[in-house]
Amino acid sequence: MPDGELRGGIDLGGTKIEAIVVDSGNTVLGSARMPTPTTGGPGDVLAALAEAIHKAATGAGVETSKLAGVGVGSPGDIDQKTGTVSAARNLPGWDGTFPLAAKLEALIGTPVAVGNDVKVATNAEIVLGAGKPYSSLIGVFWGTGVGAGIVIDGKLWVGRGEAGEIGHTVIRQNGRRCTCGRRGCLEAYAGRGAMEARARKLEHKGAETKLFEIMREHDRDRLTSAVWEAALKADDALAHKLIDRAVSALGAGIASAVNLLDVEAVLIGGGLGVRFGDAYVERIAKAMEPHLFVADRPPQIHLVGLGDLGGALGAALLAVAPDAAAPVGVVHG
Amino acid sequence: MPDGELRGGIDLGGTKIEAIVVDSGNTVLGSARMPTPTTGGPGDVLAALAEAIHKAATGAGVETSKLAGVGVGSPGDIDQKTGTVSAARNLPGWDGTFPLAAKLEALIGTPVAVGNDVKVATNAEIVLGAGKPYSSLIGVFWGTGVGAGIVIDGKLWVGRGEAGEIGHTVIRQNGRRCTCGRRGCLEAYAGRGAMEARARKLEHKGAETKLFEIMREHDRDRLTSAVWEAALKADDALAHKLIDRAVSALGAGIASAVNLLDVEAVLIGGGLGVRFGDAYVERIAKAMEPHLFVADRPPQIHLVGLGDLGGALGAALLAVAPDAAAPVGVVHG
Repeated sequence: MPDGELRGGIDLGGTKIEAIVVDSGNTVLGSARMPTPTTGGPGDVLAALAEAIHKAATGAGVETSKLAGVGVGSPGDIDQKTGTVSAARNLPGWDGTFPLAAKLEALIGTPVAVGNDVKVATNAEIVLGAGKPYSSLIGVFWGTGVGAGIVIDGKLWVGRGEAGEIGHTVIRQNGRRCTCGRRGCLEAYAGRGAMEARARKLEHKGAETKLFEIMREHDRDRLTSAVWEAALKADDALAHKLIDRAVSALGAGIASAVNLLDVEAVLIGGGLGVRFGDAYVERIAKAMEPHLFVADRPPQIHLVGLGDLGGALGAALLAVAPDAAAPVGVVHG
Repeated sequence: MPDGELRGGIDLGGTKIEAIVVDSGNTVLGSARMPTPTTGGPGDVLAALAEAIHKAATGAGVETSKLAGVGVGSPGDIDQKTGTVSAARNLPGWDGTFPLAAKLEALIGTPVAVGNDVKVATNAEIVLGAGKPYSSLIGVFWGTGVGAGIVIDGKLWVGRGEAGEIGHTVIRQNGRRCTCGRRGCLEAYAGRGAMEARARKLEHKGAETKLFEIMREHDRDRLTSAVWEAALKADDALAHKLIDRAVSALGAGIASAVNLLDVEAVLIGGGLGVRFGDAYVERIAKAMEPHLFVADRPPQIHLVGLGDLGGALGAALLAVAPDAAAPVGVVHG
């Protein structure tokens, strides 16, 4: 790829779509953000992705067909070779398999590569972000769900393709029902989706909370990270209770992963992680302490270095020639 | 090392010491087993190790000074370079640091290498045992404690030296107190040490059980794996209750590790694992099922291939020239 060619990256999240266009030095030249459709099906999400990358390309002064390629970081089961996405349970009507790469290519006129959202964001952190100094780490993405990217010996470890499901660490046997249907998972306490369901249930039962009033003021129909933040600032007791429980759950789940893998570092990202910032990274570190088996040398724990853009930057790395992504080649199809 | 030279391996467990002498093909030519001292200090354990390897060597028709080397798999914090062992909490009076390799060398007249018990046993399984077909696995050793060896990409992963503490996965926040002092660890429910403490407490409170009667019949002062097995056979209600709880805890903890690492296989070993055999491997697999995130393709789950001897065989591998242990070179100092 000649110097100066532009690439696109799209982070397809459960709540929002973030699209960017970058140059060969990964400098962002254009960007666009829009809410992820909450109704309809894969076709509606596809249209939103195409619109987002069109806007980002326009911002960069280029047409999408002139991009060297576009990468998409997506939830669900990804087949990188075929570019299909299956069972993306945080996206509307996406229980089946959808040929996302082929469909998006047809709309935007340039090759599309698809990768797992958490894995591409972790890749971005180790290539460009806060993971650069470490040869082993766990990147924890705290948002609608809770996912992780595992870096072992300088490389992303994907196992048989699905490693990193830290959100489904059992932190309380026979505990709360998770959005995945199982019981006692970390995500059942800490995932934004699960916390919203819990808040709705408790409000319905008569608990007082400003969460939904703030949601309406924000012109949203979901409890976004910004809504949670505003509710905490307004000292909403229910918001504090649910977020405190989430931090405690994250402490137990992440410490368990560290006990198993003894990594050098933990990075905290995701919609809630990035929104809440360093103060909550410290809170999570404190919540890990009582559970760390080797207590006298905890791992380094940082906020992700690329903030909200890590997912889109990692997606844009999918569109580089394979050699350029060699440090973690496994995210390449 | 010329063909036919003999090596020694000693598995130093919380309950027993197993010593073997093997030839270059890892065939066992002599063996000895004795209980681990429960009182005294490192010097008493040292004397027992020397006695055990002397007996094994005698069985093989050789003097210890003629062995090419002896490896020891030990609990505690191991410094492989200096051959010291620190803070071995399942051994008597071993809170400090003891130069085990140097002291044992002086007693038996041949070089001694020391490695972590769980790591050398996992190494033995991937070089000689049930782990041979897999490039990723978790070896779970269910005994006095619960430890794991993690194999990633064909190699033992030790992290910063202490990876594999699956026994300190939090399976119940604010749950039962563990022997490590923390709360809610897997080992607090499944470790033989914790189960014995629990059984003593419940008996003291008036629970009926034949466990301690059987212990005395076995001429033991601890609830060994054989005692637990006999109590289950005698249909002791308390033994069933504690072992059922342990299996359920193992299911949650191992499934969480599989969700994180998506390994190909899980091996079950350790004193209790080997004693209870395939029927309990199946029970553990069943207990994992409700927690596996990728439920439609669980990992293979097997009993360790080397049985009770894996620890000693792995220790004997420590005494091979480094090249011979190359597949998992990290266990070498």
